[in-house]
Amino acid sequence: MARAKSEERRAEILRAALEVIAERGYRGASLNAVAERVGLTQQGLLHYFPTKETLLVAVLEERDQWDTGSGSRSGQSWPLELLGSLVEYNAMRPGIVQTFSALLGESVTEGHPAREFFTRRYVQVREDMADSLRGEYGDRLPGGLTPEQAAPLLVAVMDGLQYQWLLDPEAVDMPAAFRDFVGLLRSGN
Amino acid sequence: MARAKSEERRAEILRAALEVIAERGYRGASLNAVAERVGLTQQGLLHYFPTKETLLVAVLEERDQWDTGSGSRSGQSWPLELLGSLVEYNAMRPGIVQTFSALLGESVTEGHPAREFFTRRYVQVREDMADSLRGEYGDRLPGGLTPEQAAPLLVAVMDGLQYQWLLDPEAVDMPAAFRDFVGLLRSGN
Repeated sequence: MARAKSEERRAEILRAALEVIAERGYRGASLNAVAERVGLTQQGLLHYFPTKETLLVAVLEERDQWDTGSGSRSGQSWPLELLGSLVEYNAMRPGIVQTFSALLGESVTEGHPAREFFTRRYVQVREDMADSLRGEYGDRLPGGLTPEQAAPLLVAVMDGLQYQWLLDPEAVDMPAAFRDFVGLLRSGN
Repeated sequence: MARAKSEERRAEILRAALEVIAERGYRGASLNAVAERVGLTQQGLLHYFPTKETLLVAVLEERDQWDTGSGSRSGQSWPLELLGSLVEYNAMRPGIVQTFSALLGESVTEGHPAREFFTRRYVQVREDMADSLRGEYGDRLPGGLTPEQAAPLLVAVMDGLQYQWLLDPEAVDMPAAFRDFVGLLRSGN
């Protein structure tokens, strides 16, 4: 019972964090702002999430699970159509994309608290995408790549386009550019 | 004369910063560490570069110019072969790639001092790449994309692969993955 309550509180904090991120972006997503929204003291919030980074990583984990409609952390399915829709959806929520991109950038430095999350995430996402592509296309995509070759490129294009789009949303049509890439993977030789 | 001397000092500082980055990575590249290496006080270094970010941005600008063998900031040429070699070269210098990737990540947050540099850089790089691709292939690449469609994807793949590679160099063969992508752009239908 205490446990269920605590889980509920945790979910409530994550929802509040997502709202704060949407409204104020990565820098504005302070532990204080989130604590206020859920009616906790900052001390109370620290009981659930000891640092801003752990809170934001939990938000990103939660997003990954919602995005793929999967309750579990592994075995997510990523058909190419769904990925295109996901990129379109992301183009409507710059706050969370900014948070993801800023944390990913920081995570490549020595000893960053989000490093392990992103490292694990990419191993898992590349594997799930390759499985999913194999289910759709077999051992070769129409464009000639194997699922294992295509997966890291799909991830790279999604992440890389986000940076260009966040910096200059007028100049970069992120969903259209992603569709161009999917077209290359799919076009037969 | 005073001006030539000052330019020379500036170049010396950039070389020292590059060394420090190579040895100690992004976090270790403090103004203090760089000042020490060139025999300046931190106060003396601040005269040339008022913050760590301005120094690192200057290092990245310098790298861009070396990488394309161009002395000027615009009109750089990026044939696809050269890009492949550049990615191979980058795989041998994780320090500067880490610095680029960490700063790029930070730059998408509000009011970051590197934001303008990256925004301008991408406008320029996309334009130069599109021009360069048009020179190589005309109005359509063999894979079917226009130069303007291919340019942001090339940038995205380079940047995105760097994150996966920095986090997990054993799992991601960055040059091979980039070559796979170039193959897609080049393969005829």
